[in-house]
Amino acid sequence: MKLTYTGKTKDVFALDNGNYLLKFKDDVTGENGVFDPGANTVGLVMEGAGQAGLRLTKFFFEKLKEAGIPTHYIDANIDEATMTVKPATVFGKGLEVICRYRAVGSFLRRYGLYAQEGQPLDGFVEVTLKDDDRLDPPISKDALDMLGILSADEYETLKQLTKQISDVIKTELSLKGIELYDIKLEFGRVDKDKQIVLIDEISGGNMRAYKDGNYIEPLDLERMMVAGN
Amino acid sequence: MKLTYTGKTKDVFALDNGNYLLKFKDDVTGENGVFDPGANTVGLVMEGAGQAGLRLTKFFFEKLKEAGIPTHYIDANIDEATMTVKPATVFGKGLEVICRYRAVGSFLRRYGLYAQEGQPLDGFVEVTLKDDDRLDPPISKDALDMLGILSADEYETLKQLTKQISDVIKTELSLKGIELYDIKLEFGRVDKDKQIVLIDEISGGNMRAYKDGNYIEPLDLERMMVAGN
Repeated sequence: MKLTYTGKTKDVFALDNGNYLLKFKDDVTGENGVFDPGANTVGLVMEGAGQAGLRLTKFFFEKLKEAGIPTHYIDANIDEATMTVKPATVFGKGLEVICRYRAVGSFLRRYGLYAQEGQPLDGFVEVTLKDDDRLDPPISKDALDMLGILSADEYETLKQLTKQISDVIKTELSLKGIELYDIKLEFGRVDKDKQIVLIDEISGGNMRAYKDGNYIEPLDLERMMVAGN
Repeated sequence: MKLTYTGKTKDVFALDNGNYLLKFKDDVTGENGVFDPGANTVGLVMEGAGQAGLRLTKFFFEKLKEAGIPTHYIDANIDEATMTVKPATVFGKGLEVICRYRAVGSFLRRYGLYAQEGQPLDGFVEVTLKDDDRLDPPISKDALDMLGILSADEYETLKQLTKQISDVIKTELSLKGIELYDIKLEFGRVDKDKQIVLIDEISGGNMRAYKDGNYIEPLDLERMMVAGN
């Protein structure tokens, strides 16, 4: 087992059988000590955040498996805070795919001339480049295609999967009276046929969830969703 | 004749017959006294810039008319630095449509992780919102549709027209040994059938043009393109 990548919230190890092991850390993204799932910097350490993130990720990946939606997930070990996944290659140097149900965050900062804060957005999908130096710029279908990052057909697959996955998560949250405002997902190509599947994690750090108008912190979201698991 | 709008580089007057008169000013956009067609601020005044801009605009609008491409242009009076145009309504609070043949400017600032400076882009089209406060953010086809600014069908028309128009201009420049790097256009809806047509102007301030690797200033571009007219 060999450390191949150290991320902001996870370390990645290569396993001898070709799969990968993701080790969830207790760091969460944010700025000035305030959690912000959209931030590029690790803002604070929250004890147990790694295990909590994995618990929620396992919960959602297993729901997606039941729904027949392809992901890189194989299994998880909560005690070790590790998840085993299939090897995947990312698009270009990495993309984030955002699904929005309410206008908040960077969407509002960009399009505030046309959108009210909190306005419903009906599962609007957009793609941003993972590029800290350039503040993760949004990028269009045409630009992704032209720059050789993602073909037009792959974009449509990605958009469709994003809506399906986000709707599954939104529904699961709503069963606990929680509303999903937005979520960011990552995708990659797996296996010989380069199938596009969901990768990375799905935890509180990936989404903005609200209950009765109040934002739910990642650790609280995990407790509310998978208490006792 | 009534002043209805004071723009950064033009004033707009309503005519009694329902058309509009655009008065070209000698202000050009830029920052810190340096001309930048992508800037939101008026950086400097250049004597004769208004007439020069109009002369080039007239030249291009008449070329487009010959090519059967719809615009708001009716006629121009160079001495007065005025152009008469059909009434048009803009999309939302205004869009800019950019056609790029080389990777420079904001494209490179956003996508520099994937593009080299000056790399050919084959007429790549993107849309930005006219919103000084939010630095004219780029916006996708899906977002334009969702926010009610432009339907998906209108987007395709806009993109097609942008490529056609930009290709006409690129060809005209190339006849003088000048290379078009990028150009920004504006569109509106005219007449009862809301036909989408090119509006505003097409002058040096709208584009980046180069000769033998050197950037051509707007006033020089006008002289090179329509000398003696």
